[in-house]
Amino acid sequence: MILLDGKKTSADIKEEIALEVAELKAQDKTAPHLAAIIVGNDGASLTYVNAKVKACERVGFESTLIRLPEETTEEDLLNEIAVLNVDNDINGFIVQLPLPNHIDEQKVLMAIDPEKDVDGFHPMNVGKLALNLPTFISATPFGILELLERYNIETSGKNVVVIGRSHIVGSPMSILLAQKRKVGNATVTLTHSRTKDLESITKQADIIVAALGIPEFLKGEMVKDGVVIIDVGITRLADPSKKNGFRLVGDVDFNGVKEKVSHITPVPGGVGPMTIAMLLKNTLLAYYRQES
Amino acid sequence: MILLDGKKTSADIKEEIALEVAELKAQDKTAPHLAAIIVGNDGASLTYVNAKVKACERVGFESTLIRLPEETTEEDLLNEIAVLNVDNDINGFIVQLPLPNHIDEQKVLMAIDPEKDVDGFHPMNVGKLALNLPTFISATPFGILELLERYNIETSGKNVVVIGRSHIVGSPMSILLAQKRKVGNATVTLTHSRTKDLESITKQADIIVAALGIPEFLKGEMVKDGVVIIDVGITRLADPSKKNGFRLVGDVDFNGVKEKVSHITPVPGGVGPMTIAMLLKNTLLAYYRQES
Repeated sequence: MILLDGKKTSADIKEEIALEVAELKAQDKTAPHLAAIIVGNDGASLTYVNAKVKACERVGFESTLIRLPEETTEEDLLNEIAVLNVDNDINGFIVQLPLPNHIDEQKVLMAIDPEKDVDGFHPMNVGKLALNLPTFISATPFGILELLERYNIETSGKNVVVIGRSHIVGSPMSILLAQKRKVGNATVTLTHSRTKDLESITKQADIIVAALGIPEFLKGEMVKDGVVIIDVGITRLADPSKKNGFRLVGDVDFNGVKEKVSHITPVPGGVGPMTIAMLLKNTLLAYYRQES
Repeated sequence: MILLDGKKTSADIKEEIALEVAELKAQDKTAPHLAAIIVGNDGASLTYVNAKVKACERVGFESTLIRLPEETTEEDLLNEIAVLNVDNDINGFIVQLPLPNHIDEQKVLMAIDPEKDVDGFHPMNVGKLALNLPTFISATPFGILELLERYNIETSGKNVVVIGRSHIVGSPMSILLAQKRKVGNATVTLTHSRTKDLESITKQADIIVAALGIPEFLKGEMVKDGVVIIDVGITRLADPSKKNGFRLVGDVDFNGVKEKVSHITPVPGGVGPMTIAMLLKNTLLAYYRQES
């Protein structure tokens, strides 16, 4: 069994980006600049967004964190976005989700200039993804493609089963892996809550992407020998034996499948750490597109 | 075996639209207005676009056909589109494909205002489709959904196999049928030229959408009893026994599968005739969206 080490891969990517930024600076060019807007004081969201800002600093990007109070109106947020859209110093920006209930998330995401939408959530970028045109692939699917590529996992002609049809992971993964692209050309089956006899489907899979959000859902008896498993889930389960009282588990019963898999992403340390690296990669991409 | 009669269904839809338009006119409202641009003198394209214009007239729509010479520059075409984008009398318009080689098709499609893009080819509309947001679903996938719905074919929980990953049919069909929607909730496998052992996959399918463009590709031994088959292909095969010297065949070996299928679209007269009806439906949709 080979672990697909997202922590190490993510560190590698950040180092590559840092070298590239150093090179740009040596040529007296400006550094890529990522901005992030966060509304309110949700602890988890603040942690995420701070990690993104810190990651920018580490690779030499400029970063701007815009903190808005919980009671910010939709209109004010849209104005803030309009300012960033036309600010030539900003190459890309994100609006940290979730937003307070009084703000229409879809409306906000659609207000972002697609050329600066480094989260890749704008319908224009999702459409370009579906049409296999240059775009920003959102961080989680992009990170999974990158892990598969760096571990030389062949996808062409393989049977891939994606479990879960979310707009963030399952749906784009199913689209991407079926396309004519380096990490692609797979025969992809998208499964979900309405799927019947899932086990007979997962048993035929060479590669499984588990992204349904149910802890330890995928069991050993549901997979065949030699399968590659990408575990996108992450849930806190109470565990009195742990100092902090919980443990993190994925959508895969790791101990149940570990004797059968050829490759698997651990949780934590698999897909999760890849997302920030891919956000940085998208920001660098935005920078080059705007330079050229 | 039940034939999914696209000719009759298409006629039904047009009649429904005609009644709706008559109702609008009775209320002294303007009729929906579709415009079509065609560049050059390709015979088949002229036939298609004329059929669209004629269909508009039959249901009571206004229509405008803009014929541009073969040597029209990309810039001139883009200007023409810019005019239609801001013309409040036009609810929707299409640019008939293919375009002459000196014009960048993707650039042209992206110049159309997504709110008037009744062909549904703009990345913004493709993205909205992938995100299950209100959009214009392009005519062929939309027509297939409509046929399945009107013939009460259950898709929820069914195994659907789509053959062919084109941006026009295979890819959007695979996305749509897996979504939470009336005709959807299926477990969808998207197969293509790189798929291995296709027969073992199609044999498990409750519904097959054949859209690969290879005449009579899907044979009887590749499907199970009771399967529903949607045949999107249409190819002219030379046939000296016919008066005009050819016959039209689909991607399915009709005679080979007919003893096994529960429902199948004939070729011709299945999916084909649905497309113009769905274009009209999208134009009506554009009209209502712009009215409201």
